[in-house]
Amino acid sequence: MNGDLARLHALDSERMHLSRAAAALQWDQETCLPPLGVEDRAEQLAVVEGLAHEKLVNPEIGELLDRLGFKPDAAVNTGAVANAAGAATAGTGPDTAVNAAGVLAGSNLPALERDFVRVLDRDYRRAVQLPPDFVRECARTEGLAQAAWAETRKNSDFAAFVPHLERLIALARQKAGYWGWGGPAVSGGRPNSAYDGLLDFHEPGLGAERIAALFGPLRERLSALLAKIAAAPQPEDAFLHRRYDVRQQDAFCREVLAGLGFDSRRARLDRSAHPFTTTLGFNDVRITTRYQETDPLSGLFSVIHEGGHAFYELSLDPALRSSCLAEGVSMGIHESQSRLWENVIGRSRAFWRGWFPRFKTYFASPLEGVDVEQFYRAVNRVFPLPVRVEADEVSYSLHVILRFELEQRLFDGTLTVRELPEAWNAAMKKYLGLEPKDDAEGVLQDVHWSMGAFGYFPSYVLGNLYGLQFWEKLREAVPDTGAALEKRDYGAVHTWLREKIHCFGRRLSPGELLLRVTGKELSADPFVRYLEEKYADLYGI
Amino acid sequence: MNGDLARLHALDSERMHLSRAAAALQWDQETCLPPLGVEDRAEQLAVVEGLAHEKLVNPEIGELLDRLGFKPDAAVNTGAVANAAGAATAGTGPDTAVNAAGVLAGSNLPALERDFVRVLDRDYRRAVQLPPDFVRECARTEGLAQAAWAETRKNSDFAAFVPHLERLIALARQKAGYWGWGGPAVSGGRPNSAYDGLLDFHEPGLGAERIAALFGPLRERLSALLAKIAAAPQPEDAFLHRRYDVRQQDAFCREVLAGLGFDSRRARLDRSAHPFTTTLGFNDVRITTRYQETDPLSGLFSVIHEGGHAFYELSLDPALRSSCLAEGVSMGIHESQSRLWENVIGRSRAFWRGWFPRFKTYFASPLEGVDVEQFYRAVNRVFPLPVRVEADEVSYSLHVILRFELEQRLFDGTLTVRELPEAWNAAMKKYLGLEPKDDAEGVLQDVHWSMGAFGYFPSYVLGNLYGLQFWEKLREAVPDTGAALEKRDYGAVHTWLREKIHCFGRRLSPGELLLRVTGKELSADPFVRYLEEKYADLYGI
Repeated sequence: MNGDLARLHALDSERMHLSRAAAALQWDQETCLPPLGVEDRAEQLAVVEGLAHEKLVNPEIGELLDRLGFKPDAAVNTGAVANAAGAATAGTGPDTAVNAAGVLAGSNLPALERDFVRVLDRDYRRAVQLPPDFVRECARTEGLAQAAWAETRKNSDFAAFVPHLERLIALARQKAGYWGWGGPAVSGGRPNSAYDGLLDFHEPGLGAERIAALFGPLRERLSALLAKIAAAPQPEDAFLHRRYDVRQQDAFCREVLAGLGFDSRRARLDRSAHPFTTTLGFNDVRITTRYQETDPLSGLFSVIHEGGHAFYELSLDPALRSSCLAEGVSMGIHESQSRLWENVIGRSRAFWRGWFPRFKTYFASPLEGVDVEQFYRAVNRVFPLPVRVEADEVSYSLHVILRFELEQRLFDGTLTVRELPEAWNAAMKKYLGLEPKDDAEGVLQDVHWSMGAFGYFPSYVLGNLYGLQFWEKLREAVPDTGAALEKRDYGAVHTWLREKIHCFGRRLSPGELLLRVTGKELSADPFVRYLEEKYADLYGI
Repeated sequence: MNGDLARLHALDSERMHLSRAAAALQWDQETCLPPLGVEDRAEQLAVVEGLAHEKLVNPEIGELLDRLGFKPDAAVNTGAVANAAGAATAGTGPDTAVNAAGVLAGSNLPALERDFVRVLDRDYRRAVQLPPDFVRECARTEGLAQAAWAETRKNSDFAAFVPHLERLIALARQKAGYWGWGGPAVSGGRPNSAYDGLLDFHEPGLGAERIAALFGPLRERLSALLAKIAAAPQPEDAFLHRRYDVRQQDAFCREVLAGLGFDSRRARLDRSAHPFTTTLGFNDVRITTRYQETDPLSGLFSVIHEGGHAFYELSLDPALRSSCLAEGVSMGIHESQSRLWENVIGRSRAFWRGWFPRFKTYFASPLEGVDVEQFYRAVNRVFPLPVRVEADEVSYSLHVILRFELEQRLFDGTLTVRELPEAWNAAMKKYLGLEPKDDAEGVLQDVHWSMGAFGYFPSYVLGNLYGLQFWEKLREAVPDTGAALEKRDYGAVHTWLREKIHCFGRRLSPGELLLRVTGKELSADPFVRYLEEKYADLYGI
């Protein structure tokens, strides 16, 4: 290997190890940390994340990138450019250079190394734009805000969370500013707000305008479907509100995870206030869930959802190990995997024909007299609820669209943090006909904002869209999927997902990946088609 | 605060946060890490520990120490010097400068800051002597060796562990060499072997010669006591080998911990292959244990032992927070606390008069017909066993003396690693009359060597010696201790330990602390006196 390239890999893997160490500290904070330990942990995270940042902004990386002949495109917003350029060249084989953003002048590097250099260049440029003190300040603020969120949520005390959220929004706006967003619109009329910058961070290539153009019609179609369902008779689901021993729930979830192929030599399941997945190493992916005694599905579907994220991270090409390529490419693609496992597979009739007999062995008493078809109908009962993670498949996306619209307003200045609960409740009433009983089940329900993750929520719906586009192709390639799911045989699904999507890590941009796998641009049609067919059958509409 | 001093504190706390982050990664490795995650974790630890080292050897720290007027004593082996010098000045009040090693020329710093500067100077000098690559190599080797140890111990496959141990010993020797040990004897005839350097690291001021001078006679007196006990009738203890549900054991241990004052807002208990205590923050101390179904005492006494370590770390003066002073001063003093709680308190008649009724509520069936006096006698049954952590109080120190003698020989070159199992088994036969059934319960039983911790074992016996010297003073100061223990009232004991020992952290050297608290030099007499009295009563000898 070229000496410069070898040095670049050494520098990159060192900072990746440091980022993984920070991820381990965060995982610990959510799952294990004694309550009074939070202050020291915030300091530790600030130091470790600050150093990870320092390692990335090392000028030597810039010099090596220059010497390797990488000439970044002049555009400020690289995600959009990479996406557009990638679309033009997608379809070439995996061993050729599949990305053309930037120009590797006269480079003879193998395709994998060219992708490595391109992605590292993107990370490097994003990072050099953030001052080290700012990065430390973000880490410290987020550490304290997460602890405050957990506390204020417990007491439904939004007022106590306001200063944290205001500070986090100011920091997020500042961050987008450092990345060159929030100034006047660039030529060609593309939007360039701070919020666009945050969206681009999570989903390169998609701005608020394009997302709004997808989400607007989607909201209408979902509302129409929801109205039809509301007029139809509801399935019986009283048995889902009986007592389901939490220890038994945990045992069943572990059996399901193992059955799905979750490898406990490389991954683990724990509990936390809010379910999440984090990657601590190539062979160390951690998921969490929470259980509710009178709702056996809440914990289970969180487990399957996070399991879907974990399968992505655990199926990367080993050649990417310890490099900046060794991650899922975007939040949206990640959500496509988790939501595919959770909903398309996990809430299917075929899945439950496979698992219901096992489920009954854990919960014979609460499920007495219930058959698999009744259970399948109850699992998919459409009944709007105020908490996003407990929402049914049809109303779920409306929860997310609500958050997207509120984030837009928080960042364009038409909504203040203090006004947020009122705006939240108004939108909840309008889209879902619901009134949260307090802020704990309203505006304080999600951990995301306390982590400074603005522009993240749309990924959940984008994941639904990508996911169903992928699923249509998977069904063509693996025609007997339904029969396999009934037999709890997930091998062909894993293989297709690994070979078509997972193995690439960050080598392909989301748009490139989508085009490569489906030959199409992003669309809400397959997702809506899937919902309309499934719920027409379920509700006889 | 003086600007230089403030800067020194900032640099020190940054590296302390990094060390705590490394401790968190290590804790996770022992308690949570998926088995295949060990390789990446070793890399992460190498990076984080390497950076903590880099932060400590920052030349700016050296310059600040110089500017603050700290003139280190010329002697190479600072521990011994600090100890001797400290002994000369001990007895002055806590708010005056209680340490005189080195000279703070013309300094007007408050006593606490002088101690801070002196201890940081010691850490700095120790660290600058170790090259960064060497530190990383140690971390990497130890990470892999610990995983290998766990595996080879499972299979009792010492041969597979040999290359790891050889490499660890070579690195430890190299480390002592960097610190100036292992050369020709210094003037005054003090020993100066590599092993002396490792002992000094764990217990400043005590070399192999002085330890051997204490351990030799101790071994004789313990052997004599053991012989007398062997000739006396043994108490009944069959009920201790019945089945004790592990979940119930865990619940009882948590009740005992809470009763002893273990604060779950600042500390937690988990499980690992080998019990340990680690400090992740001023309000974040973690202990671990392991349970055996047919031995209810193994897990419990580990919990009390580690709890004793935790009480020390949780009782430091808050003024020391995030600084290099915020730790127990040495392994020996640390062990004095853990062994005091485990043995002197936890295996006392008064303790069990307090807890036995609670214990019986957890284990009514296996303890049917057993009264507290029978239980107390069974708890203290002297019966040599091959595993150190399961040993009774009388034979325990012989296990340690055996390890001390083997370490001496490994480092003076009269014993090779390959010969170790044979030498281990021969000494086990001679001192305890035992033959381990395999290397898993012999030479592979302890985690310490796999962590590169040579010269650590003697601390356990030194802890017994310090502990009983402290306990004699505590009994004078708190005369109704026995009655308080019977009432499960540990307040006065905690207060005395905190005020006399814990609060100082590293401000006083072990020798200074001992002299300050007891007015005496280190001695085995109180320990042997305690054992002889206790076991004369128990065995009627």
